Amino acid sequence: MINKNELKYIQSFAHKKQWAQESVFIVEGPKLVAELLDSDWIIDKIYANVEWADMQTDPSLNIQVVEDFELEKMTQMQKANQVIAIVEKKLYMKPIEFETQFTLVLDGIQDPGNMGTIIRTADWFGCTQIITSEDTANLYNPKVIQSTMGSFLRVRVASMDIAIVLKAANLPIYGALLEGSSIYQTNLPTAGFVVIGNESKGIRPEIISLITQAISIPKFGSAESLNAAVATGVILSHWKSQ
Amino acid sequence: MINKNELKYIQSFAHKKQWAQESVFIVEGPKLVAELLDSDWIIDKIYANVEWADMQTDPSLNIQVVEDFELEKMTQMQKANQVIAIVEKKLYMKPIEFETQFTLVLDGIQDPGNMGTIIRTADWFGCTQIITSEDTANLYNPKVIQSTMGSFLRVRVASMDIAIVLKAANLPIYGALLEGSSIYQTNLPTAGFVVIGNESKGIRPEIISLITQAISIPKFGSAESLNAAVATGVILSHWKSQ
Repeated sequence: MINKNELKYIQSFAHKKQWAQESVFIVEGPKLVAELLDSDWIIDKIYANVEWADMQTDPSLNIQVVEDFELEKMTQMQKANQVIAIVEKKLYMKPIEFETQFTLVLDGIQDPGNMGTIIRTADWFGCTQIITSEDTANLYNPKVIQSTMGSFLRVRVASMDIAIVLKAANLPIYGALLEGSSIYQTNLPTAGFVVIGNESKGIRPEIISLITQAISIPKFGSAESLNAAVATGVILSHWKSQ
Repeated sequence: MINKNELKYIQSFAHKKQWAQESVFIVEGPKLVAELLDSDWIIDKIYANVEWADMQTDPSLNIQVVEDFELEKMTQMQKANQVIAIVEKKLYMKPIEFETQFTLVLDGIQDPGNMGTIIRTADWFGCTQIITSEDTANLYNPKVIQSTMGSFLRVRVASMDIAIVLKAANLPIYGALLEGSSIYQTNLPTAGFVVIGNESKGIRPEIISLITQAISIPKFGSAESLNAAVATGVILSHWKSQ
């Protein structure tokens, strides 16, 4: 049995006020939790049904067995899925390494599902570092976490003042714009930044002014815009295949 | 003023039972409706506020002026946006031309937002023909229409038994699979089919058996899967840049 206060606490993560301020976040489902257990992320507590709990062999896990109907009350998914873990956030307060890596920069990507898809796309193409403007959907929004399908475990996502970071780093800054060199004629570097902006508003002017090379995905038809996750995929695919 | 029956009729398009069986569908907002007026699609009726109506110069338009609070009751968006049009569906019952075109084939893409994004992506890369399995999200689902951002006006989308079509056409059939020739080493043809499957279940076995060349987007990291719209973008980008 779970007590009422704990139940309320877990349910409160549905609200931004809660998930934004807490030092922990929630991960659901056996597949994701298995990946977490295999990672260096710290799990504070696990709520699971008896079937899931019985399969665990690590005695150090802090598992509380609960009934399926209790999991249904706790879940933020449409249907509970065996296990809910309370995991400590990583805040990446220490400096990030930019000189040796290709870093994706997200400026104002507000849709959480799109944000999760971008993280998953970066993971697919082996881009393991993303920095995001403070108005980009937060990694710890439960909708972002779930839509990464586990890719948040492998891609380092840090929210920061991207203008300061871009100014400080002496590296090429590519920006995906409607007008720019065709990506098909551009060689993307091993180390550097690629900025992707908000789908309707684009990259903010103060960030545009820091871009050292504008690139664009040529438009062959008449679509109004390209979805930000699709644009990210096209650019990263080009980065890997060039 | 709009009468109660008309209001109920328009509101009923929020439900699949209604939008699936009616011969018309709903398009909202001045930008999309302006594009419609510029196209060969037939608009049966337009409900608009006085500001929008006053700007129209074509006397043949069947416009009913309504109050803003009435539009708010009619809209399926979070907020009404000046104009709602009732448009006749195109059913594409006549044979589609396959021999001279590159046709995207969607097998089991169920998420309407993703479906709309795929149509928009096809439009961006100049791919103007899509055929979809009967279990793919329907074009006339209001969420699909809105998320195409007008691209449904330029891309012909037809729902049909794709197995029959693929069997009948004597053209190369490429299928996006986890195992296959790297797209970076594949030259996609001017005419032919590329099949994209459901993100978690993949392409159905009966369709896989019809594929003449399996292609894949190489995975450089460890993501579980690539979003179907992102995969479509990467493949179409390669098709245009090869």
